[in-house]
Amino acid sequence: MMGCLRGLFVLLLCAATASAAPPKMSVAQWRDANQAVVISRLDRFVRLPSIAADPEGLNGMAEMLVEELRMRGFEPRLLSADGSPKVVFASLDTPGAKRTVVFYAHYDGQPVTSGAWASDPFVPVMRDMKSPSPVAVDWRAAGGRLDPEWRLFGRAAADDKASIVAFLSAYDALVATGRKPSVNLRVFWEGEEEAGSPHLAAILAANAELLKADLWLIGDGPVHQSRTPSLYFGARGVLGLKATIFGPLTPLHDGHYGNWVPNPATMAAQLIADMRDAEGTILIPGLADAARLPGPADQAAIAALPKIEDTLIASFGIGRTEGQEGLATSIMRPALNIRGIAAGGVGADANSAIPAEASFSIDFRLVPDQTVEGVKASFEAFLSEKGWSVVREAPDLARRLEHPRVIRLEWEPGYPGFRTDISLPVSQAVIGAAGKAAGRPIAVLPMMGGSVPLYIFDGVLKTPLIGLPIANHDNSQHAPNENLRLQNLWDGIDLYAGMMGGLDW
Amino acid sequence: MMGCLRGLFVLLLCAATASAAPPKMSVAQWRDANQAVVISRLDRFVRLPSIAADPEGLNGMAEMLVEELRMRGFEPRLLSADGSPKVVFASLDTPGAKRTVVFYAHYDGQPVTSGAWASDPFVPVMRDMKSPSPVAVDWRAAGGRLDPEWRLFGRAAADDKASIVAFLSAYDALVATGRKPSVNLRVFWEGEEEAGSPHLAAILAANAELLKADLWLIGDGPVHQSRTPSLYFGARGVLGLKATIFGPLTPLHDGHYGNWVPNPATMAAQLIADMRDAEGTILIPGLADAARLPGPADQAAIAALPKIEDTLIASFGIGRTEGQEGLATSIMRPALNIRGIAAGGVGADANSAIPAEASFSIDFRLVPDQTVEGVKASFEAFLSEKGWSVVREAPDLARRLEHPRVIRLEWEPGYPGFRTDISLPVSQAVIGAAGKAAGRPIAVLPMMGGSVPLYIFDGVLKTPLIGLPIANHDNSQHAPNENLRLQNLWDGIDLYAGMMGGLDW
Repeated sequence: MMGCLRGLFVLLLCAATASAAPPKMSVAQWRDANQAVVISRLDRFVRLPSIAADPEGLNGMAEMLVEELRMRGFEPRLLSADGSPKVVFASLDTPGAKRTVVFYAHYDGQPVTSGAWASDPFVPVMRDMKSPSPVAVDWRAAGGRLDPEWRLFGRAAADDKASIVAFLSAYDALVATGRKPSVNLRVFWEGEEEAGSPHLAAILAANAELLKADLWLIGDGPVHQSRTPSLYFGARGVLGLKATIFGPLTPLHDGHYGNWVPNPATMAAQLIADMRDAEGTILIPGLADAARLPGPADQAAIAALPKIEDTLIASFGIGRTEGQEGLATSIMRPALNIRGIAAGGVGADANSAIPAEASFSIDFRLVPDQTVEGVKASFEAFLSEKGWSVVREAPDLARRLEHPRVIRLEWEPGYPGFRTDISLPVSQAVIGAAGKAAGRPIAVLPMMGGSVPLYIFDGVLKTPLIGLPIANHDNSQHAPNENLRLQNLWDGIDLYAGMMGGLDW
Repeated sequence: MMGCLRGLFVLLLCAATASAAPPKMSVAQWRDANQAVVISRLDRFVRLPSIAADPEGLNGMAEMLVEELRMRGFEPRLLSADGSPKVVFASLDTPGAKRTVVFYAHYDGQPVTSGAWASDPFVPVMRDMKSPSPVAVDWRAAGGRLDPEWRLFGRAAADDKASIVAFLSAYDALVATGRKPSVNLRVFWEGEEEAGSPHLAAILAANAELLKADLWLIGDGPVHQSRTPSLYFGARGVLGLKATIFGPLTPLHDGHYGNWVPNPATMAAQLIADMRDAEGTILIPGLADAARLPGPADQAAIAALPKIEDTLIASFGIGRTEGQEGLATSIMRPALNIRGIAAGGVGADANSAIPAEASFSIDFRLVPDQTVEGVKASFEAFLSEKGWSVVREAPDLARRLEHPRVIRLEWEPGYPGFRTDISLPVSQAVIGAAGKAAGRPIAVLPMMGGSVPLYIFDGVLKTPLIGLPIANHDNSQHAPNENLRLQNLWDGIDLYAGMMGGLDW
């Protein structure tokens, strides 16, 4: 009953602010007063399972977004290529504005197949995080200002529906607080980012005129671990590889033949040790040669970041870090990560055998101006130099007998990294407006460690790209129990409002 | 019909030879004439599933063997300790003999749980190996001398019921050919070898007086890969280890944290590369210091072995071997084998994550005079030297944070290697008698690469031990489709007859 009354109060307040906003109300005041409305919208979005496995869910989500945009006066349309999930595009020009800004986000979520969720991924649950095992809370009945540490759990709540909710809420806040956008607004919300955006380049190319703009803001990815509102100016590219090393045709008794028949697990270990040292430095000649070094503006931005290393070290339970640099600097370098390695058996599965093969999985993280082809070429040249014979399929007997070291490489597609120069006028304008909107210095990240295919936009559009993340870094991205921290949503609304109403360059 | 007639013919022949053997018949002639009888016995033994999971099968097998021995005039008894499966012990003194020889074998087989058998492991099937996919043949109906390349498939057919059948058949052959044993005969057939012989030392100690002898012949293990009848004078010991290396408390996104948070898979690879080189040389200081070097007699025996390296290389499909030595020499050294390694995921299971831990499995193969404790101590000292903090259980958070490199060690029990000196008079007598029985030079192996717990016998009995193997090296030991090659059984009968009737020193 109380909850019902409180809900009614919020609704009235919202209606009041929407129809006749007090002229002095700030964006922050608006969202304080409209928390329930904002969360309801996210809740509604999460309940619609817009994942690759559910084309109807993707369609339904696109239609719901078209409706949300239309009722705000935007001119929406759906873009697609080759029957792809629809891109929700919409525009709203601002009279007198000289700049056009596109807000990118994606409304599709990761699959929900992997691992165990504490609750249905499509029935959002708010949880109070203060206790060691978070407790579900009824936010609708809570009333007043909600605990900003509460988190809403559900697939795509953080990645990436939060960005869409922040955009819509920020626009509502601008209107309600009597302000006007300072730029022409565009939205570009795609529906297959989690599937690798296979049609994105085609859609961008086919709609180049429509998408002409001065800036793209990429509303995806996590904010800095300090929880400071953040911008990122680039992201590393990625290139995956499965490598398989061959031993005897079948496993052999390692008592009878160990020490004489080469063991592929040992060979894999030696090769990995040859590839990178204990500080993460890549030992493959030429692989990192093309990497663009951080400039003075990048270094200054990194120096100004809140120090989070000690907190992370404690929360990860690690006794050292690789390299002597902080996290943000280490991310500016190319990386060679071992995602997995497998050979024979361990523990209860251990047999006294030389395994027939050993395989391992690498992902290379690329920085500008490394290329996928360049990394592949350096790696394969390094293998040849070390005496490896490279094959693309399982080797036949003749190949095995001819070559002392045979390795099969299965490259994944991969894509390069990208960085927008921090010192450009547009970059400085975005940094300034974001700081003003946040009311404090923001975290300016020259590069995200993770990969976002910014190269696709850059390759087609040749327009500056800047990352505008909202989600907490600990959002359980791509994993079970994805969640969005409420304060991140509030900060995101402020930032989006700043990007709509405060940008001028 | 024809098959039936042939079977009858063999039976008549057998009855004839058993009741009134022509005085000039050789052992080889006897077994040529009695192939069906010998194979029938092995067939009957294999049908009795004497494996650890089937205590009734073990009991039944022991009783069957007692009966076989009793009908040949041996004095059998059952030995056990703490309710262990029974050891079938039996003695038959030879008037005037000055030496006593114990014939060891085991009647238990490996479990049949792992992998797929082409046919029921307890319903023996004879297969013709000439076609690429071996064809089942009806040996009972075949008549005449059977193809010696045929193999009988079934659990324990090779390991180790073949040795028991060879003993019984060789004794029958001696009797049938009118010869007498030259030594006092003892059999010691245990029923829990495949379970690690946990009660063997206790049984030996409790029956020391009964078991007094001048020589133990260990009827187990494979013959030389050249298929030459073989003796081995030692076997390496073994020591297993599971090692676990710890990274972050939970897997972390390797784009965001790779290159900064240490990756346990990479650490494992580096550690393995630090432990041994590409030629199999162990790089752990002190670990191999105690290893007894091969003496001149060992080196001469190895030099005289048939060269099988090229054949093995071709059949294993390998392009090189470790070290510059032949197989038999490499086996004289201590070995460090990687049985398996596991971290994260590979291929379809690959996640873009730094794994939380990496584990690997080692088995060390020990040569005399290395000790289990010595190997452990050297390995742990090496880890400390390399900056590893060794724990026995999963480390707590404090340990993880204090130490940059934490490794958990789970040692298996392990046991040392053993070698009987080839130049002892007893050794020379056995080599001489074996060569005479085989009618050609035999393969004298100073050491078997695989492990047999000879140390247990040596520790209690202080009696020379020599290995008297029968099974073909490619018998699929401990794996599905275990099989015995017929010629190996025939050679084994000759060899056993030589050990019973031709030993004198």
